[in-house]
This record gives sequence, C-alpha cells and structure tokens, in this order.
Amino acid sequence: MRLRNKPWAKEKIRQYPQYVIPEPEKQKGKWREMFGNDQAIHLEIGTGKGQFIVGMARLHPDVNFIGIELQESVIVSALDKVIEAELPNVKLLNVNAGHLTDFFANGEIERIYLNFSDPWPKKRHEKRRLTYKNFLKAYDEILAEGGEIHMKTDNQGLFEYSLVSFSQYGLILKDVSLDLHNSDYQENVMTEYEEKFSQKGNRIYRCEVQFPPKKAEENEVLL
Amino acid sequence: MRLRNKPWAKEKIRQYPQYVIPEPEKQKGKWREMFGNDQAIHLEIGTGKGQFIVGMARLHPDVNFIGIELQESVIVSALDKVIEAELPNVKLLNVNAGHLTDFFANGEIERIYLNFSDPWPKKRHEKRRLTYKNFLKAYDEILAEGGEIHMKTDNQGLFEYSLVSFSQYGLILKDVSLDLHNSDYQENVMTEYEEKFSQKGNRIYRCEVQFPPKKAEENEVLL
Repeated sequence: MRLRNKPWAKEKIRQYPQYVIPEPEKQKGKWREMFGNDQAIHLEIGTGKGQFIVGMARLHPDVNFIGIELQESVIVSALDKVIEAELPNVKLLNVNAGHLTDFFANGEIERIYLNFSDPWPKKRHEKRRLTYKNFLKAYDEILAEGGEIHMKTDNQGLFEYSLVSFSQYGLILKDVSLDLHNSDYQENVMTEYEEKFSQKGNRIYRCEVQFPPKKAEENEVLL
Repeated sequence: MRLRNKPWAKEKIRQYPQYVIPEPEKQKGKWREMFGNDQAIHLEIGTGKGQFIVGMARLHPDVNFIGIELQESVIVSALDKVIEAELPNVKLLNVNAGHLTDFFANGEIERIYLNFSDPWPKKRHEKRRLTYKNFLKAYDEILAEGGEIHMKTDNQGLFEYSLVSFSQYGLILKDVSLDLHNSDYQENVMTEYEEKFSQKGNRIYRCEVQFPPKKAEENEVLL
C-alpha cells in the first residue's frame, strides 16, 4: 500500500488510548481483563485501514478483536472507523508483528487473521513473510489449543508458499478456496484492498489452518 | 472422457501380455523381478491414453512405470504407445484402482501419479474420488517409506478437496502450483487431456505430497 505522510497521525493515535492501546506489553496475559469479559480473542496482523476488523467486530459481538498495524499513517484510518463504530470489542495496536510474544501470553489468542499480507516475493526476503516458520512458531505460542489461522490473499506466490509452510510446520488444512468470490463461502468480510483488487479481476485465495494438539509432554511440563 | 465402444479392445489387450499384465495379483511383491532390476516403481492411477506414462518412461529410464486404467477402450490407446515406444520400463494394468493392495505388496511402490482424475463433484460420490481417505490408506500401504503422490488437475473443486484430504490424513505438502503452465516448473510431461484443456485456458493445478514417516511401533511389529 502506498503510504502518505501524515505528520498528525502519531498525535491522533495518542489521543485515543482507549482504542489504540499504548504500551501493550503491559497488557500481556490481561487482555480479557481489558475487554471485561471471557470472550475469545481474534487477532488480525496487518489491519491496514480497518474495514475487516471493524466489520468483523460488528458481526461478531461475542468475540473480541485486536488489530495490529505498524504504519501510523494507515492505522489512523482504522482508528477513525473504530471511533465511529463505538464497539466495545475491538482494539488496535500500533506495533510490529515481529514481537507478538511480548504482547500476548501463551494461549491468550483463539484465532489469527492474515489478510493480504505483504508477499515479499524475493527469496532473500522469505523470513519477512508472515507465514514463515518463525512467525508460525510465535503464533503457536500465543494461540490456545486448537487455535487457527485464517488467511486471505490475491498473491498466488504467497498463497502457494504459505500452504507449504503451514504443512511443513504441522498445521492441518481445514478449508481452502482457490477463488473465494466465486465460492459458496457466505461470511466473507472484505478488506479495502480486497474490494479494489477483486474488482480488477484478481482471484482471492483463502484458507483456514489449525495447529495440531499440543503434545502431552509439553502439557505436563506446564503443570 | 467420452468412451467409444471398441469391441476389439479386449482381444488386443490379450495379445500383448508382456505390456498389459494379465492376472496382476500374481505379481504382488514380485514387480521388481518382472522388470528385472531394482529401480523405483512409479504408479499412475488412471493412465488414460498413455501419453504421460510413456513420456515419463522415456525421460526416466532409471524408473519403472506402471499405468492402471480400467477402461478397455482407453487403455488400448496407451497400449499402442507402449508397443511403439519399445521401452523396457513401462507396463500397463487393466484393473480397478479400488483393489491396489491386491496387486502390490506393502512398500513396493515409490510414487503415485494422479492426473486429471474424475472429480466426482457430487458430495454423495466423495468416496469415489481418488484422494478420498480410503484411497489414501491404500496408497499408504503400498508406498515405501517417504513415498509421494504427485497430482495434477484442472478441476478446482477436486484440487481444493484433495489438499484438505491430504492434510487431514497427515500428508506433508512439499510443493504446490496454482497455475502450472505459468510457473517455473520445467519437467512437466503433459497428458492428452492436459494439452486439450490448457489450450482452452483452463488453469492446471499441481501438488506433491509425502506420507509422514511410518511410526516406530509399526516398524517394530514388522521386525
């Protein structure tokens, strides 16, 4: 996404600490307290301008949503939508997705959404892809038993790479669509990017994968 | 594929027992003896008119190929190609793919090819799809340690179904292409069907999956 310089963005983010949570590492292990309920927490990594997460929060009041977006000039658009929606079940974090385990305790999250992530097509940038094994390891840590990743992209190369990376990590494919907008999937909430590029004729790929049951030995160590 | 009635097909097949092996259950566990060497054996299920298997046998003299095709009126076209090619490393079987374990011993096969299999799109026909779990179980039995399935299809629904079925069975995805003819995959040998339908603009999907290591306990039982 092309970034416009918005010098006022940082200040605006600071004005809404109830929506864009400052110092999220202090909330680690306490996100349910912040939301004030025991609902499942779903995390979108790369929330962009927020249409997806606000749409999902509206559709699913029984789930808490957290959107992560590093770019200040982009997250302010998501913040505008959150302010307008006045929903109790959506929060934003202006942080880097590379430090998830600083912000979330083991098993604190139920689901992760990856929507139209940067494909980083060059082989030497593989480690930056959000479905690279090091990211999967972090997701594995913060996700609860049976936790899932729901991914959408119009980038064929990233989708192929991700299917292989998921499988090699041991994730189980629950559902896959190779042409989401011509499928019978009813519940789709579109991102801004998805609206724009599907109109241009780009195919949208989608999958749901699930982490395998945590091993008994690991559970015993925790006891 | 539309089938033409060829009343002479059965007789022609009978005339070439060196190419279309009669009573293949008698060869169970002895296929390497028949080929007269210790090369890996690759099996194509649904060989059709034989362009793929004969092309592969020509390209890979260090591998033995067996093609299975139930339809007499179709396998005779494959037989014509095998007769003309005069290759020592390709055999045909005029049998039903539902009885693989009658023809092959545990671990006797190194790789299985599924090319443009019948998609059986209706849910009630799921059990007939060659990537249904019961078929995967049979492949698992006849494949050696580290055995693979290489699949190609232009049927989006069958490919989506198969990726999920493979994953649920525990197979590991090694490689996937969502548009084979516009990928950097060099070694493709086309089937007759593939030539025809890719020219019409159909996308070709391809994947390679590998069975997980056989469990230690199972190996111990065998010792």
